[in-house]
Amino acid sequence: MRMYDIIKKKRDGGELSTEEIAFFIRGVTDGSIPDYQISALCMAIYFKGMTVRETCDLTFAVRDSGDRLEFSAINGIRVDKHSTGGVGDKTSLVVAPIVASYGVKVAKMSGRGLGHTGGTVDKLEAIDGFRTTLSEEEFIAQVNKIGLAIVGQSRQFAPADKKLYALRDVTATVDSMPLIAASIMGKKLAADDDCIVLDVKTGSGSFMKSVEKSRELAKLMVDIGKNAGKKMVALITNMDRPLGYAIGNSLEVIEAVETLQGRGPADFTEVCMTLAGYMLSLAGKGTPETCEELARRAVADGSALKKLAETVAAQGGNAELILHPETFKKAKYSHTVLSRSSGYIQSVDTEAYGLSSLALGAGRNTAEDAIDYSAGIILKKKTGDAVKEGEEIATLYSDNAASFAAAEEKLLAATVIGSEKPADEPLVYDIVD
Amino acid sequence: MRMYDIIKKKRDGGELSTEEIAFFIRGVTDGSIPDYQISALCMAIYFKGMTVRETCDLTFAVRDSGDRLEFSAINGIRVDKHSTGGVGDKTSLVVAPIVASYGVKVAKMSGRGLGHTGGTVDKLEAIDGFRTTLSEEEFIAQVNKIGLAIVGQSRQFAPADKKLYALRDVTATVDSMPLIAASIMGKKLAADDDCIVLDVKTGSGSFMKSVEKSRELAKLMVDIGKNAGKKMVALITNMDRPLGYAIGNSLEVIEAVETLQGRGPADFTEVCMTLAGYMLSLAGKGTPETCEELARRAVADGSALKKLAETVAAQGGNAELILHPETFKKAKYSHTVLSRSSGYIQSVDTEAYGLSSLALGAGRNTAEDAIDYSAGIILKKKTGDAVKEGEEIATLYSDNAASFAAAEEKLLAATVIGSEKPADEPLVYDIVD
Repeated sequence: MRMYDIIKKKRDGGELSTEEIAFFIRGVTDGSIPDYQISALCMAIYFKGMTVRETCDLTFAVRDSGDRLEFSAINGIRVDKHSTGGVGDKTSLVVAPIVASYGVKVAKMSGRGLGHTGGTVDKLEAIDGFRTTLSEEEFIAQVNKIGLAIVGQSRQFAPADKKLYALRDVTATVDSMPLIAASIMGKKLAADDDCIVLDVKTGSGSFMKSVEKSRELAKLMVDIGKNAGKKMVALITNMDRPLGYAIGNSLEVIEAVETLQGRGPADFTEVCMTLAGYMLSLAGKGTPETCEELARRAVADGSALKKLAETVAAQGGNAELILHPETFKKAKYSHTVLSRSSGYIQSVDTEAYGLSSLALGAGRNTAEDAIDYSAGIILKKKTGDAVKEGEEIATLYSDNAASFAAAEEKLLAATVIGSEKPADEPLVYDIVD
Repeated sequence: MRMYDIIKKKRDGGELSTEEIAFFIRGVTDGSIPDYQISALCMAIYFKGMTVRETCDLTFAVRDSGDRLEFSAINGIRVDKHSTGGVGDKTSLVVAPIVASYGVKVAKMSGRGLGHTGGTVDKLEAIDGFRTTLSEEEFIAQVNKIGLAIVGQSRQFAPADKKLYALRDVTATVDSMPLIAASIMGKKLAADDDCIVLDVKTGSGSFMKSVEKSRELAKLMVDIGKNAGKKMVALITNMDRPLGYAIGNSLEVIEAVETLQGRGPADFTEVCMTLAGYMLSLAGKGTPETCEELARRAVADGSALKKLAETVAAQGGNAELILHPETFKKAKYSHTVLSRSSGYIQSVDTEAYGLSSLALGAGRNTAEDAIDYSAGIILKKKTGDAVKEGEEIATLYSDNAASFAAAEEKLLAATVIGSEKPADEPLVYDIVD
């Protein structure tokens, strides 16, 4: 088999065989296929696409390129939720304990943030003492005992994806539906869950800017998951504005806790209840509607918050911070951002909000950057809100006061104010199953 | 300027600016753009094409990536002919002396053969003592004195093309009209001719298999040449069968000499007279028709043969071989190929004929291979000829008798014999100017 023939076949619109795709991914992984042939094939795939069958084969080859987890030692049904990444997206911190409080197992591996998006692992590390690295035995024992564990990705999952993504990123071939789906699902399927709820973010804060494209991606990923024997559902959710009011690590943990206390922002609460409902439903706890009721009940009776505190304690974190979030360490400095005009917020560039938070120290530009856990933004006004000139629209937090000026400009430039109140947008655009 | 943005622009169907194309080719030449970005752009160009303006810019950037010749010291109009490569294509050996015999200057740089195609330089080196390397001063002095010199490409012409072609060759991006045109013309325009006649070969022995595609390529190359200030014309000629009966280096020199003696094969003579006519016409000697008459006259009166002998002598070669071609060294062994069926030759795979000759030792698989100058094939039957089972269709020549079996099988497999006499095909499909 020759890589040249594989490139030519795809270039000419052919369907690659399972063997050809496996050959390609093996060569990516072991370095035997040179980068220039990999990038040429990615560009051919960009133009000619892949069938669902090819995309499944690609995904499974990516999954099999490295380590895989094996969860048979976990008792009970394992469900996970995966978000394609957004700004102010702390849903995992809310939905995982809700679901676990009903005895459904959540054995969660999460990523770190990069660029404008945050990562669940970073948020958890804002909690003093929290260990995001557990041995496989510790991890499984904790899931069996309390139903929930959340760790970082310490092992070599899907190394082919890492290599492929790095090349796609510099050759303008990221934006290809089968390549995106295989990248996300190849990593996700390296874990060993029974059910997966995908949260496909759409809009200015996500990498899918249109609902149509998100629906296409969601459908493809659901098909791939089903082909791998998983129960699957995908929600297309709104990321045209940040979720909730908090952006930044400890600020988001606090907001998640408030949500588990029943006093979270309406939009964020709504998305969390919908997601948790589908997770419980896939796990066999009833229809999505009745399961959403179960989710609300776990918040109302405090069992979900208790589950989060229990999880934090089990992983060495200070659970007092969860029960009394007002005791989180505050940033050294804060800065109030005032509106420079009056009207309604028409729209915001959510990605720019994420970059503003990054500038304050809440994120990282490169994988090696250190994070200021207390840095970030608390929004006072969001899309659709009326605002007056001189009125506060956000408060910035940072240990580095010198970062405020740039972060403020970025945030104001990303906030479009006009005279008409904009139409409401749905929080959940669609359910794909 | 970033290569990423250039790839993305072309991927999205944009027109690259002169500066972007220059940046790309500079980066290819100096190695600052990595191979994986070059191949990604080539694939995007494969799918999205280039405008004539972009293709001209690409050609000129390729031309300017290395040395350029400067022929102002040559007195008189300089005309060249360039063939896209075929099997048994010894036209340069005939047309160059014809044209030079009328005082038009032919300062010719030729290539070596690779794979199934032969090269003029290899053919000339079949003549004892012939030097294909001259200093620039020697070269120009000889052209001024006798009107004709033919040398190999000793200098670094269009190094960007060398790099680009090597990458295209392994990433299935060779077959792109603008990339082909820029490759051929980028090298050609590094020389300093006033007029160029392109011989675009079409059919099974060339890399352009259809007349339509050849016409498109010819038109593009003519446009590029005109944009560079050259007088241009392109002939689309038939390479569905070998030109003449001889394939192999000294065998082709002998056939070229016979043609200059007025006793060459009809098809080969016809193509040579047409090409020489257009060369003389571009150089201002009259209409193509009257110039074709001039070409025939230079053969009839022996002045063209005399010019070739003079050129060979000037470059150190044994001119006696030109005047008495029967004295060329013969191959040690010969082998007669007999037809295994009766009927008419319907068609031949000309490329396979070239590969058969290569197997006999007449060509090279890699640039380093040595050539057996007396090896090759003399065809006895060509497409359209009647043939009986057991009748000779070709004689093979080689110093290596062990090569005959494979070469014979290749040749027979490439020869389609059927009961109906096939329709005649034109020798010259079209003239593009």
